[in-house]
Amino acid sequence: MGVLKVYGQVLSTAAQRVIACINEKGLEYELVVVNMREGDHKKEPFLSLNPFGQVPAFDDGDLKLFESRAITKYLAHEYASSGTQLIYADGKKMAGMSVWMEVEAHHFEPASSALAWELVFKPLFGMVTDGAVVEENEAKLTQVLDVYEKRLSQSKYLGGDEFTLADLHHLPNLQCLMGADTKKLFECRPRVSAWSKDILSRPSWLKVVEMQKNH
Amino acid sequence: MGVLKVYGQVLSTAAQRVIACINEKGLEYELVVVNMREGDHKKEPFLSLNPFGQVPAFDDGDLKLFESRAITKYLAHEYASSGTQLIYADGKKMAGMSVWMEVEAHHFEPASSALAWELVFKPLFGMVTDGAVVEENEAKLTQVLDVYEKRLSQSKYLGGDEFTLADLHHLPNLQCLMGADTKKLFECRPRVSAWSKDILSRPSWLKVVEMQKNH
Repeated sequence: MGVLKVYGQVLSTAAQRVIACINEKGLEYELVVVNMREGDHKKEPFLSLNPFGQVPAFDDGDLKLFESRAITKYLAHEYASSGTQLIYADGKKMAGMSVWMEVEAHHFEPASSALAWELVFKPLFGMVTDGAVVEENEAKLTQVLDVYEKRLSQSKYLGGDEFTLADLHHLPNLQCLMGADTKKLFECRPRVSAWSKDILSRPSWLKVVEMQKNH
Repeated sequence: MGVLKVYGQVLSTAAQRVIACINEKGLEYELVVVNMREGDHKKEPFLSLNPFGQVPAFDDGDLKLFESRAITKYLAHEYASSGTQLIYADGKKMAGMSVWMEVEAHHFEPASSALAWELVFKPLFGMVTDGAVVEENEAKLTQVLDVYEKRLSQSKYLGGDEFTLADLHHLPNLQCLMGADTKKLFECRPRVSAWSKDILSRPSWLKVVEMQKNH
């Protein structure tokens, strides 16, 4: 195989999701920087990699992919024998884990992305945070974390007793929110708090944090 | 195996997604009706099936699942030898298909659900459609369908040359929007229009349409 290529930016949460997955698998990769400030993600040649003009895009030799969660699933299946097992071989366990991947995508992601935008990225870009949007999404996130608190009393991780993609997909937004006032929603729930600390301290993720600092 | 159970309502688009998948697989199932008008989806015993209080929930013997797309993935893998193949055995083809499943979930679904709510469900419930929300989401859907039009020049279906879950997941919202003014966005794009007609006329889906009429 050639070297995996991730087209994106270390400050992109979706690119971080893919890089954390590659790190868990212990694979080599090259980060091909897309200059988003110049709008390069909205122009060719990037649009040929992702017609939606969003980072990251990815290739593994002649296979070209986009959408961070499709890329992580590919890595977990294709490189099943490298590094951390991020999926289950057993069909029923995998189905149970899939439920929590969908929960991340349809419940955690919308609320946490809205909060990350309002509380982390807008201040960074000198824009004004919209308090009503924060309130609405903190209420949504509260419901999600209540479900997680209960779920984490039944299994060590969201997708089962092992760390899997169902947990990994949370990392980028989780880290953002831990740097904002929203962290209170995590800290007041003992199991959610322990789970957050656990997954945020994985070496695969600490490497991504280090890259962000050096950016 | 016992009989598959779908807990929900035939008017729920997410339940329709699961039923269409079961029909493609030629499997038997029982629809356990959840009285949403009475709010039964927000109470026990339903909350034990889905802590988010949304239909559908599903069981296959002792395996209990929720989230429609996790259920369809389970059915496609577990019953791979029954009915239509809705996934690929080949890892790279499957990865390519996964991209378009993510596109449905993160691009088509948000815009099309918002439009279905404003243009189909709100009038049904005697509520007033919000023109600004319609305009915003028609603009988003336009971008998505532009990408689909191009994609469908490269392969017969979104996920590849075969009908797969990547197409099937679109059916419920697609049908809703074909009954609203938004159908113009599909009809003016020749490949998208042909694809819509093709997948909406599959026997698995016509059965779901029939159930809705008889409701």
